[in-house]
Amino acid sequence: MLYLIGTGLGDYDITKEAEKALSLCDAIMVDGYTAAISDKKLEYMRSISDKSIRILGRTALEEDISKTISEAKSKNLAILVNGDPLIATTHKTILIEARKNNIDFKVLHSTSVLSVSMAESGLDFYRFGPICTIPRWSEHYKPVSFYETVLNNIKNNQHSIMLLDYDNEKRESIRLEEALTIMRNAESHYGNGIMADNSYVELLCDLGTEKQKIKYCKLNEIDKSINYTMATLILPAKLSDIENEYLKMYETTV
Amino acid sequence: MLYLIGTGLGDYDITKEAEKALSLCDAIMVDGYTAAISDKKLEYMRSISDKSIRILGRTALEEDISKTISEAKSKNLAILVNGDPLIATTHKTILIEARKNNIDFKVLHSTSVLSVSMAESGLDFYRFGPICTIPRWSEHYKPVSFYETVLNNIKNNQHSIMLLDYDNEKRESIRLEEALTIMRNAESHYGNGIMADNSYVELLCDLGTEKQKIKYCKLNEIDKSINYTMATLILPAKLSDIENEYLKMYETTV
Repeated sequence: MLYLIGTGLGDYDITKEAEKALSLCDAIMVDGYTAAISDKKLEYMRSISDKSIRILGRTALEEDISKTISEAKSKNLAILVNGDPLIATTHKTILIEARKNNIDFKVLHSTSVLSVSMAESGLDFYRFGPICTIPRWSEHYKPVSFYETVLNNIKNNQHSIMLLDYDNEKRESIRLEEALTIMRNAESHYGNGIMADNSYVELLCDLGTEKQKIKYCKLNEIDKSINYTMATLILPAKLSDIENEYLKMYETTV
Repeated sequence: MLYLIGTGLGDYDITKEAEKALSLCDAIMVDGYTAAISDKKLEYMRSISDKSIRILGRTALEEDISKTISEAKSKNLAILVNGDPLIATTHKTILIEARKNNIDFKVLHSTSVLSVSMAESGLDFYRFGPICTIPRWSEHYKPVSFYETVLNNIKNNQHSIMLLDYDNEKRESIRLEEALTIMRNAESHYGNGIMADNSYVELLCDLGTEKQKIKYCKLNEIDKSINYTMATLILPAKLSDIENEYLKMYETTV
């Protein structure tokens, strides 16, 4: 049996159900590619399982996935992921591969940045349009099309979650300085004024962890020195009364 | 301190972090209004906390909320909710009220129908438009406007999550028979053909629990006798190749 186990956002967010499964596993691996698991969390996983834990990189999780999961044919194998599994395409292809190889699998969920963003934002969950990512730029690849997603959402009076891209080498989201520069460039490119200096955004840092910080302010008021591992920005559409009242909590929190 | 604690979708989905908080609480209450907590889960909560657990109805959670949470001024009080907190407006007003009364609070998250729907659906999370609910009809109130949300999503090539309304008295989602009748009526009213007999949908029953069942089929092929406590329907937009491949798993699962 292959267990794909979400370890959630916080260091101790693994569910009781998943702990039980983990204690039954013969081998334990960690997805070290799509998002990082903190050292504290890894240490806790070791304390539950008493097995050694192998960290998997991109090759083991993608090109060599068939080989990686082959021992699940005869043993109980767990692959641990940060947050909730199956959001990343990599996890979906793991299950498609398991199915092709007649390997039984079970997915155990935990806290996810998608639902915790919606919950902690204080915004009505019915009003979120599609999610996008502010992508890392490289010298020759400078995409700004996330702006179109946000623009379309605003036109439909929908809120926009913008995940800050994950930097696999540094094991953290891109820095605010970089994200804000990309947003400014996207604004210059499209020019609809939705990411202007005085546009209001919610900055959500390290959601669902003990370090969680949330701030609601204008784009040019963001404190770029805030320390975080993972961060998300939300660009709200026109606020309802209750949303407005809730967001007052975040005007003074950081 | 007021702890608003998500107990997740499954019976043992409470996180380690939340278990620890619960063991420190002087009084424990359960939201019995916005969604039901199973008897098995309640029993498990009792085994963790050794306190008696008071079930709260609408009045205690809404009109009388200020009184309900007043003991959190001097004691550690937990309010347990099914799934993840803060999705329901009721939970947001609890925190607004706590803030007004200078009561410190902490939210502890768990698995949510919003993220688990996106994850288990096999569909790309970037492609989900706004979520809607297929509402219970009464003799004098027969809303069909959820159709407009889905129609707008389809026009934008976005997937639609349609939650089946929660029946507070029966402690379960409305039955498929009723949901399908409402969808048929909405289709007759608007006539865009997006909820026709041969429209494909995903039916997700008791997500994130040990009873989870998922089926991908045409609307007129749904087996209405499927037994469930909570259910969700997803009406997908045009599928990508990987989505299509993933959904093959669900053509034969129920």
